[in-house]
Amino acid sequence: MSEKKRRAGAGAAAGGSASKKPRVSSAASYAESLRSKLRPDASILATLRALASACSKSEPAGASSSSKALAEDDPAANYIVVADQDSASVTSRINRLVLAAARSILSGRGFSFAVPSRASSNQVYLPDLDRIVLVRRESARPFANVATARKATITARVLSLVHAVLRRGIHVTKRDLFYTDVKLFGDQAQSDAVLDDVSCMLGCTRSSLHVVASEKGVVVGRLTFADDGDRIDCTRMGVGGKAIPPNIDRVSGIESDALFILLVEKDAAFMRLAEDRFYNRFPCIILTAKGQPDVATRLFLRRLKVELKLPVLALVDSDPYGLKILSVYMCGSKNMSYDSANLTTPDIKWLGVRPSDLDKYRVPEQCRLPMTDHDIKVGKEMLEEDFVKQNEGWVKELEMMLRTRQKAEIQALSSFGFQYLTEVYLPLKLQQEDWI
Amino acid sequence: MSEKKRRAGAGAAAGGSASKKPRVSSAASYAESLRSKLRPDASILATLRALASACSKSEPAGASSSSKALAEDDPAANYIVVADQDSASVTSRINRLVLAAARSILSGRGFSFAVPSRASSNQVYLPDLDRIVLVRRESARPFANVATARKATITARVLSLVHAVLRRGIHVTKRDLFYTDVKLFGDQAQSDAVLDDVSCMLGCTRSSLHVVASEKGVVVGRLTFADDGDRIDCTRMGVGGKAIPPNIDRVSGIESDALFILLVEKDAAFMRLAEDRFYNRFPCIILTAKGQPDVATRLFLRRLKVELKLPVLALVDSDPYGLKILSVYMCGSKNMSYDSANLTTPDIKWLGVRPSDLDKYRVPEQCRLPMTDHDIKVGKEMLEEDFVKQNEGWVKELEMMLRTRQKAEIQALSSFGFQYLTEVYLPLKLQQEDWI
Repeated sequence: MSEKKRRAGAGAAAGGSASKKPRVSSAASYAESLRSKLRPDASILATLRALASACSKSEPAGASSSSKALAEDDPAANYIVVADQDSASVTSRINRLVLAAARSILSGRGFSFAVPSRASSNQVYLPDLDRIVLVRRESARPFANVATARKATITARVLSLVHAVLRRGIHVTKRDLFYTDVKLFGDQAQSDAVLDDVSCMLGCTRSSLHVVASEKGVVVGRLTFADDGDRIDCTRMGVGGKAIPPNIDRVSGIESDALFILLVEKDAAFMRLAEDRFYNRFPCIILTAKGQPDVATRLFLRRLKVELKLPVLALVDSDPYGLKILSVYMCGSKNMSYDSANLTTPDIKWLGVRPSDLDKYRVPEQCRLPMTDHDIKVGKEMLEEDFVKQNEGWVKELEMMLRTRQKAEIQALSSFGFQYLTEVYLPLKLQQEDWI
Repeated sequence: MSEKKRRAGAGAAAGGSASKKPRVSSAASYAESLRSKLRPDASILATLRALASACSKSEPAGASSSSKALAEDDPAANYIVVADQDSASVTSRINRLVLAAARSILSGRGFSFAVPSRASSNQVYLPDLDRIVLVRRESARPFANVATARKATITARVLSLVHAVLRRGIHVTKRDLFYTDVKLFGDQAQSDAVLDDVSCMLGCTRSSLHVVASEKGVVVGRLTFADDGDRIDCTRMGVGGKAIPPNIDRVSGIESDALFILLVEKDAAFMRLAEDRFYNRFPCIILTAKGQPDVATRLFLRRLKVELKLPVLALVDSDPYGLKILSVYMCGSKNMSYDSANLTTPDIKWLGVRPSDLDKYRVPEQCRLPMTDHDIKVGKEMLEEDFVKQNEGWVKELEMMLRTRQKAEIQALSSFGFQYLTEVYLPLKLQQEDWI
């Protein structure tokens, strides 16, 4: 079939640009020669099976991964790590909080909330956990104090609203929440901030509060799951794929015969993989957040990783932002540090496109882009990040990027043919176990 | 059921904010009183059935709507209107073009392409068609001329690439196309521009060239279709919905028992409607492009409208941008004017949220936002647009917006309860046939 396609491609080139001779540069012919290096798929699949099996053994059994153990073993630990809770549990936590406030009022002491500090000085990276977490440090938010009266009121109101949402069994957005009492909240930043406070106070994730973010991500491949009770087969979602649901707690019954999860930075690469039904040749689950990862996609990836225990391979642009996207998936973003246990997926392998690939695959000079000053600044900052420092291979790649001052997009591989990504580059990467 | 929910809501409010008495503002109680105005669903459904039946009669039979007739009746018309073509037809058009160039070269005259001008001075709004179209005015692009040699080469190259893509039966993005010959194209703006030229030269849509845009839109509701052969039932897509496919030509077998299409501006409102399974109460298809409409969503909406002949009701923010979004769906954007026949959906009804709704539904003052100077400028510009001028109701609403200098988001309705949108506002709108 690849032979047939090659002929079709060559024929088309000759037919299409009648004014020019078919031009075959040395880079293109080298790129084509890599095709002959590919072993039969059965051999590559054996490699992937070994990877998947190693991955499933390295994780402890059960849904609670090692990263959650911290909070569960020692609730009075020095760090705040929130966890997913069901509606009944969140509701009863709210009830306890409100009951305590009522008792305090009745005893003549007024009421006050103990709110964990989410200041950035309070956010630390824990190498053992490989995540950013929040140091446990609470401050009082008394109602009978001019400085905190308004915020205490907002806190009470948000608790009440979340309680109502949970009782109705629905999900709402942050914006919805804000609009229920614009007069009190003033602007959305205030209700959003208090919502995060409430999440920390109750020790549960924001999605447990049924306040969801908008969705951006899509998924296709060897995966079935139920979205709000509807059975979804992601091998039958055409090229468009299935939109990743905003409310992760409505996702259940995750099943898969995939050997790995392929995390893709960009929409265009996702489309290529979906149209070529890459997952039928190499059983995998393909997902993308279309750029900067949103909360829903991060929650979904983590659920897949924890429940299916599959290796996660990432395909991102060869630039500092590709690495930054990996860091958000792996270590979380700073302003959601208290929720990092539920939002992060540890141990993602950097499959490509890596700076060393540019020479290895002889990506033509004109398809590489010079790094801007800002790129270089971000790259240097990444080099100082703990999660990069931990992985020697990543440090080397990043140093090479900064030395050559070149970056490239995944689509640069299109210079060897539109399907080079799915027909040569990725199969060869998998065959050579070329991830770090 | 609504009674039960009301009680649950009241109970939650009392339980949640222990420090305050349940507060019922007059706006909220009025909002709640509207619930009693609702007739039984059967009665509202009868209204919708009448609407759907009127809509299907008003359109001519067959897939080709009146808006396409222009190009088909008179190919030498004064306007360029491209049409969807299958791969074989596009391929043979390219062959003819290239053959003509070859003959011209062999006869010693070199070669030249006749390229329609896409300059904005060439783009006009046709009231009869209610769309922006391109005036037919071609310029020569000879290869043997220093000024046009490069562009003629790029044109030949793009024709060749499109030919190759069509022969392979795949779809690619504009970015992929650019990367196949960075050296020649220089930057993506050039290959993109020539792609639009090629589209006009061949008289076919960009999606007929198999060059697709990235997808943003999602759909749920009473709709089934095939995406690349996979049967999709949009009532079984959970809360997340089905991602609208980037390549409309892979969509087939569209079937529906819906009575109308509900076009939603924003993700949050879409989520509310999906979670509440609004389409089960009032059979409809719900879709959103999550803000500014992308090409894939516009193509998809048009296909639904043309094949199903359903009325389209729009739910957008009450601000100038809400109206602007409607204008893009209805009349197209200026830089794609040559493709407006395939991208636009005429006769969309403005259901809400309309400026007059703010008082009618007594949306609290604090949930309305003051219009900025920029908002007012955009609003005044919209007032000058032909497509607004045509509809007296729209003019009045827009004038009211500019007079009151107030805008409001769809979510402002959340101030009456998270499900007010789906339980009261929309049913009442449908019952009262309150669209313009």
